[in-house]
Amino acid sequence: MSFDPTRYAPMANAIRALSMDAVQAANSGHPGMPMGMADVATVLFSKFLRFDPSRPDWADRDRFILSAGHGSMLIYSLLYLTGYDSPTIEDIRNFRQMGSVCAGHPENFLIPGIECTTGPLGQGLAMAVGMAAAERHLNATFGDDLVDHNTWVIAGDGCLMEGINHEAIGLAGTLKLGRLKVLWDDNRITIDGDTSLSTTEDIPARYRASGWDVIQCDGHDFADIERALAEADLSEKPTLVACRTIIGKGSPNKQGGHDVHGSPLGADEIALTRQGLGWTSEPFVIPEDVLADWREAGRRGVAAREEWEARAAADPQGAELQRRMKGELSDDADIRAAFDAWLQGDANIATRKASENALNVLVPAIPEMIGGSADLTGSNNTKAKNQAPFTADDYAGRYVYYGIREFGMAAAMNGMALHGGVIPYGGTFLIFSDYCRNAIRMSALQETRVVYVLTHDSIGLGEDGPTHQPIEHIMSMRLIPNLNVFRPADVIETAECWMLALQSPKTPSVLALTRQNLPQLRHEGGMLSARGAYRLKSAQGARKVILMATGSEVQIALQVAEKLEGQGIGADVISAPCLELFEQQDEAYKRDLLPDADPSQILRVSIEAGVTWGWERYTMVNGLNIGLDRFGASAPAKDLFARFGFTADAIVPQILDRIST
Amino acid sequence: MSFDPTRYAPMANAIRALSMDAVQAANSGHPGMPMGMADVATVLFSKFLRFDPSRPDWADRDRFILSAGHGSMLIYSLLYLTGYDSPTIEDIRNFRQMGSVCAGHPENFLIPGIECTTGPLGQGLAMAVGMAAAERHLNATFGDDLVDHNTWVIAGDGCLMEGINHEAIGLAGTLKLGRLKVLWDDNRITIDGDTSLSTTEDIPARYRASGWDVIQCDGHDFADIERALAEADLSEKPTLVACRTIIGKGSPNKQGGHDVHGSPLGADEIALTRQGLGWTSEPFVIPEDVLADWREAGRRGVAAREEWEARAAADPQGAELQRRMKGELSDDADIRAAFDAWLQGDANIATRKASENALNVLVPAIPEMIGGSADLTGSNNTKAKNQAPFTADDYAGRYVYYGIREFGMAAAMNGMALHGGVIPYGGTFLIFSDYCRNAIRMSALQETRVVYVLTHDSIGLGEDGPTHQPIEHIMSMRLIPNLNVFRPADVIETAECWMLALQSPKTPSVLALTRQNLPQLRHEGGMLSARGAYRLKSAQGARKVILMATGSEVQIALQVAEKLEGQGIGADVISAPCLELFEQQDEAYKRDLLPDADPSQILRVSIEAGVTWGWERYTMVNGLNIGLDRFGASAPAKDLFARFGFTADAIVPQILDRIST
Repeated sequence: MSFDPTRYAPMANAIRALSMDAVQAANSGHPGMPMGMADVATVLFSKFLRFDPSRPDWADRDRFILSAGHGSMLIYSLLYLTGYDSPTIEDIRNFRQMGSVCAGHPENFLIPGIECTTGPLGQGLAMAVGMAAAERHLNATFGDDLVDHNTWVIAGDGCLMEGINHEAIGLAGTLKLGRLKVLWDDNRITIDGDTSLSTTEDIPARYRASGWDVIQCDGHDFADIERALAEADLSEKPTLVACRTIIGKGSPNKQGGHDVHGSPLGADEIALTRQGLGWTSEPFVIPEDVLADWREAGRRGVAAREEWEARAAADPQGAELQRRMKGELSDDADIRAAFDAWLQGDANIATRKASENALNVLVPAIPEMIGGSADLTGSNNTKAKNQAPFTADDYAGRYVYYGIREFGMAAAMNGMALHGGVIPYGGTFLIFSDYCRNAIRMSALQETRVVYVLTHDSIGLGEDGPTHQPIEHIMSMRLIPNLNVFRPADVIETAECWMLALQSPKTPSVLALTRQNLPQLRHEGGMLSARGAYRLKSAQGARKVILMATGSEVQIALQVAEKLEGQGIGADVISAPCLELFEQQDEAYKRDLLPDADPSQILRVSIEAGVTWGWERYTMVNGLNIGLDRFGASAPAKDLFARFGFTADAIVPQILDRIST
Repeated sequence: MSFDPTRYAPMANAIRALSMDAVQAANSGHPGMPMGMADVATVLFSKFLRFDPSRPDWADRDRFILSAGHGSMLIYSLLYLTGYDSPTIEDIRNFRQMGSVCAGHPENFLIPGIECTTGPLGQGLAMAVGMAAAERHLNATFGDDLVDHNTWVIAGDGCLMEGINHEAIGLAGTLKLGRLKVLWDDNRITIDGDTSLSTTEDIPARYRASGWDVIQCDGHDFADIERALAEADLSEKPTLVACRTIIGKGSPNKQGGHDVHGSPLGADEIALTRQGLGWTSEPFVIPEDVLADWREAGRRGVAAREEWEARAAADPQGAELQRRMKGELSDDADIRAAFDAWLQGDANIATRKASENALNVLVPAIPEMIGGSADLTGSNNTKAKNQAPFTADDYAGRYVYYGIREFGMAAAMNGMALHGGVIPYGGTFLIFSDYCRNAIRMSALQETRVVYVLTHDSIGLGEDGPTHQPIEHIMSMRLIPNLNVFRPADVIETAECWMLALQSPKTPSVLALTRQNLPQLRHEGGMLSARGAYRLKSAQGARKVILMATGSEVQIALQVAEKLEGQGIGADVISAPCLELFEQQDEAYKRDLLPDADPSQILRVSIEAGVTWGWERYTMVNGLNIGLDRFGASAPAKDLFARFGFTADAIVPQILDRIST
C-alpha cells in the first residue's frame, strides 16, 4: 500500500503537531528531530515497515529502532497513530511526566512496541546490528518461511559521531548484514551548533569503506524518499540512507537551527507553525481523515502476520522457534549429568577454563546460545568445542568474532537478546568492561539476558601490569542495578554461576573469571551459589572470626582459617560468588552467615583482590578488609599476590592483632 | 643524518633480538609487533624523530607514542639503544618482573622517555591527538622558535578497530592537526587470527574520509620507509602511513602468524631466528658497532636541543613557557578577589552555573587552561566569557568543540596534560562518564591534571529519564585510585573544588555538578572543601544524629537537621564534597566529625541521590543510608526527589524510628 503525496503530507504533519505540542506541554524535550524526520518516517511506516500494531510481539516483524532516542516523540507519535494500544493519547499528553509510559527517551520495558531503550547515543544503531545478526541466524536455522525480516534504524549525527558507530558498522559490514537499513537524519546540526564546528567527515565515504551501500535522498520529498527506501529495501549490503533534512521542519523561525533541537518551540512559534502547516486541530487532536489514513497504514501488515502464524503453526520447527522467542530454557538433563562428573573430579584449573568446560556442555544443550569474544577467544575461553563461527558465509554458526570492538560487541548482544530467540554471551578482559560499561548498564536497564564473560579478573593476570589489572571493576559493577556480578571460586561455582546466569531471563550477568589456576574447593552440589554467599567451612572451635571472600581469594581464606584453627581460633569461611543474590536472601539466612554479634566478639574479615570500599557493608567499619586500594604492577601473579599481601602469612597476623586488642 | 640500508638492517635486528630475548626470559610478552615494526622504527628514530636522550623533558622534542603498547619491547629497545638513562639493559633483562621499570606495557610514571601509558587499545593514538593539539596551541601562543614539533605514533590494527579511533581521527581531521603522523603496523593479524575474521574495512578510505593523508609503504624496505616518512613529514594534513609488515618478521617458522603476537618464540625458534638474521651475540648483548650506530642516531638531536635552549633563554616568553611546562600555577590574586565577592553574595544557582562563574574568573587568570565539551557546551556551562574556540583557523583559541566524542575528548585531554604546558578540562553529562571511563582511569594511572566537568549529576536532571540519570556513577568513580571525585553543594564549594582540582598536579578530578538550582549554604571562606568533609552545622542540643551528605542533598540534610532540632534532637550536618580528601585527613579530624560512639547513641545518616553501597564506610552497618538503589524515571526533578524519598518529610520519620528503637 502506498499513499500519494497529498495524503502523506498531513500524516507527517500529525507527527509534527503531536511532537511540538507534547514537548510544549512538558516544557522539555526535543521537537527538532521528530519534525525533521516526520516525512521519512511517514513513508517508512506507510509503505515499507512490516508490522502489526495488534501484535507487537510478532516474531517475524521488522524491527524499528529510533537510535536518536531523544526524538522519542517521533516513535510515540508513530505507535499511537498506527494503532498500537500503547501509548494512548493520554500518555502523550503526559509526555515526560511521572507515571506516563512516554518517558523522555523510549523505554522498551514501558511500551511493548518499543524494541529497545535508546538515548545513550550510538547504541541504538549498534543494538540494531545485533538484531539484524539474530535475524540472519534464526533465518539460517528456521528458514525463510519463519524468519525473514528487516531491521530499520533512524539515527542522527550524534549516533554517527560516537566511536561505537565505527565498531557497529564495521561488524555489520564484515557480516554483510544486508537486512539492516539505517536512515540517517542528515540535518547538519548538533547541540553546539552546525556540525562543521566539530566534524568535517565524509560520512558516505566512511560507510562505503566499511562495506555498506549508501543512498541519498531529499528527506522532505516524498517521491524521493520512496525511491531511496525502495533501493535500500532491495540492497544486499547493509545500507545507509542519507536523508537530507531540515531540523524542526515546519517551524518558520526556528527550523534549521540548533535551538530547535532540545527545547520547546514556545507558544508563539507553535501558532506560526500550525499556520504554516495548515494544521487547525487543537493540541493532541488528530483530524479524523488523517487518523484514518494512519490506521490504514497500521493495518497493512495484518495479513502478513496472519499468514506467518499459519505457517508457524504448520511448520515442524514452529514450536521450537516460539520456545526460543519466549526465552524459555529447554530441559537440562545433559547439563546435570556433566555437573555430577565435575563434582567427582578434582580440577585445578582457572575459572576461565572451568567456564570453557561448562560451555562445552551448555552450548550443545542450549541451541539458542550464541557466543563470541572481542578478539580474545583463546584468552577468554569462550569458544566451545565444535562451535562453528557465525560469518557472512554461514549464519547458522554460533560463534561471533566480534573483533577488537568491546562496546560494539556488548551493544550487539543487547540487540540480539532484545530481538529474542537467542541468548548471547561474549568475552573480553574484565578491565575492558570499562570500554563497554554503558552497554552493560543498558543490559541491566533493558532487562536483557546477556552474559558477559570477563576474564583476567585481578592482579592475578600478572605481567601485563596496571593497565590490564582490574582493581575497582568488580565492586563498581556491583553498583549497577539489576546486574548480577558473579565471581566464582572454583570449577563448581563456575558451573553454578553459568546456570544462574542462564536462568535469569530479565537480569544480565557478569562472570568475573581468573586467568590463573585455582584448586577445586567443593565436591558436593546443591547449587549453593544460588544463595549468593554460603558457609563453605564452619568454625571448629568457638567462632571468633568470619572470613568472607570471593573468587581466587576463597582459597586464601581457607588457608587463613586453617592457620587460625591451628591456634584454636574458630573461623568460618563464607564464599560469596554473587553479593547481589546474597542481598536478596531473607534476614534469617543473612543473620545465620553474619550473626549480629559484638564485633569485638566475632571479627569479620573480607578478602578480595580489589578495592575494599563497599565491603564495610558486610564487615562493619571496624572489621578487617583485605584488598587493594591502589593500581597494580607488572610482575608474575604469584609475586603480585605476595607483594600486595594476599597470602595467609600476611593476613593471619593482622587478624591476631585485631583479636588480641 | 641518514644511515644506509646496510647499517639500518643490523640496527633493526638489535630491536628484534632484544625483544625476543626479553619476552623469552620473562616467559610472557609480545614479540610479534616489535619484530614486525623494527625496520620502520629504526628509520623513524635514526632519521626523522627529533629527540635528545639526555633531555627527555626537552619541551620542543617530538613526541613518540607507542599506541600498540603491548609491543613495549619496541620502545624499551629504542630508549636503551639510543642512549636514554632508563631503561638500562638490566631493566630489560628483568622485563615484566617485580621492580623493573620495563613493565608489561610502557608506563609514563616509570620511565621519563615514555610519553604516555599505553595498552588499553586505541587510547595511545587518541592521546597523541591531544598532544598534537597542545603543540599547535603552544605554537600559536609562543611561536615557531619555541614550539614546533611533530607527534609520531605507532599503532596496530587493534588501535584502528576500536571505536575511539573514529573519534580521535575525526577530531584530528577537523582540527587539521598536520603535525600528527601515525605509522600503522599493517600486519593483517589480530589475536584471534587473520584480520579478515573480523573486519573487511578499507582503512585508507576511512582515514581519507576524515580528512587525513594516507601514504603506503613496504615496512621492510628501508628506502621505501624513508620515502614514506619523508612524505608524511611534509604533509600538512594528519597523516596515516600504512606500513605493510610481517608480524614477528625474522622468525622463520612463526612470522606472519597470530601465535607470534603474544607468546615467547621458544628457545628453538629463537635459535633459528638468530641464524636467519645472522645475529651471533649472546642474549641482551648488542655488538659494539651496532650500538655505536644507535648511539650516533641518539645524538642527532643534541644540537637542535641546545639551539632551542639558547632561543628559549633569549626569548621574552621563554620563562612563561617553562613555567607552564613545569605545571606551576601563577599567582591567583584575581581568583581570591572573585571568591570574596561570591561569599558575600547569595546565589541560588545550579552548581554547573557556579562552575561557569568560576571559569569566568579562572580562564582569564590561568592562561594554560583549555576547555571544551563533548557537544554539550550550553548544558555543561564549560565555556567562559570571551573564551575563543580552538579551531583549525585559530589554534590560539582555548575552547575545543570536541563533538559527540566523550572517549576521544577524555583521551585527548590526557594527551594535552601529558604534553604539558596546558591544563585541560572538558564536559559531558555525568552519565556519559561511562563512555570515557577507561580514559578517566588512565588520567588517574598516568597522574595527569585533567578536570572532568560532569553535569546533570543525579535524578535531578529530570525528564530525560533513566538512560540519562546517574545512579551508580559517583560512587563507582570514587573506587578508582588517584581520582578526586568532587560533588559540591553550592556556589562556594564549587569554587573551592575547582581550585582544589587545579592545585592537584598529579591527580585528575571529577566535578559532579547539578542541573538544578541549589541555595547558597555558606558565606565564609576557609577553603573548607580541602578537608574533603567538614561540619557545616553543629548540633544545638545533645548530638543524637550525624547527617552526612553531598551536593544537592546537603540542603536536604540541613532541612532534616532543622526538623530534628525542632524536636529537641541535636543533629550535625557534615558536607562531604570529596570523600577521597576526607580519607587523607588525620585520625583526630575524622574522629571529630564521626566520633567513635555506640551507634545506638549517635545515629549516622548518609544522604546522597545515588547508590547507598559504599556509604556503610561512614555510617556503619546499622546506620541509615538514604539513597537510590534502582534506576530512575522520567519526570520533573522535583517530582523525582519526592517520589524517591529525598525530602525532609520522608527522611525525618525514618530517623525518628531508628532513634526510638
